[in-house]
Amino acid sequence: DADDSGGQTILDIDIGKRKRLIVRDFKGTPLVDIREFFQKQNPDGSEVWLPGRKGISLTVDVWETVVAHIGDIEDALKKF
Amino acid sequence: DADDSGGQTILDIDIGKRKRLIVRDFKGTPLVDIREFFQKQNPDGSEVWLPGRKGISLTVDVWETVVAHIGDIEDALKKF
Repeated sequence: DADDSGGQTILDIDIGKRKRLIVRDFKGTPLVDIREFFQKQNPDGSEVWLPGRKGISLTVDVWETVVAHIGDIEDALKKF
Repeated sequence: DADDSGGQTILDIDIGKRKRLIVRDFKGTPLVDIREFFQKQNPDGSEVWLPGRKGISLTVDVWETVVAHIGDIEDALKKF
């Protein structure tokens, strides 16, 4: 399922608040995944970050629609 | 909970594939929510779009970190 976090990671950005933006290759389809991660302890005591439930995977067309509206979004945020 | 879809809507953009980007005012805090919606039928036969499970609410600082990395993200998507 494209909404899971499988596939090859092309870009992985820490965007803060335990969230990451990951560009990944899901069977040849690029996806932009914005997701919360949580830390889990392995049996050996080491820790690993795993993708959480909160997040969304965007296809490139959906992502580009977001990018096309950044001006509108910034304007809306200026109202606060 | 800021991760629910409560609060006053400031901006609501249809970004395609049943997804919306909503800027909302959650008790004075601006949030950028990117979320999947689903259509539900009311008892009277009318239909309403409701926020679904798949989505993420970003605070302004997290959103601005995404915006700051758009060049990197676009570069990564060009590799496909």
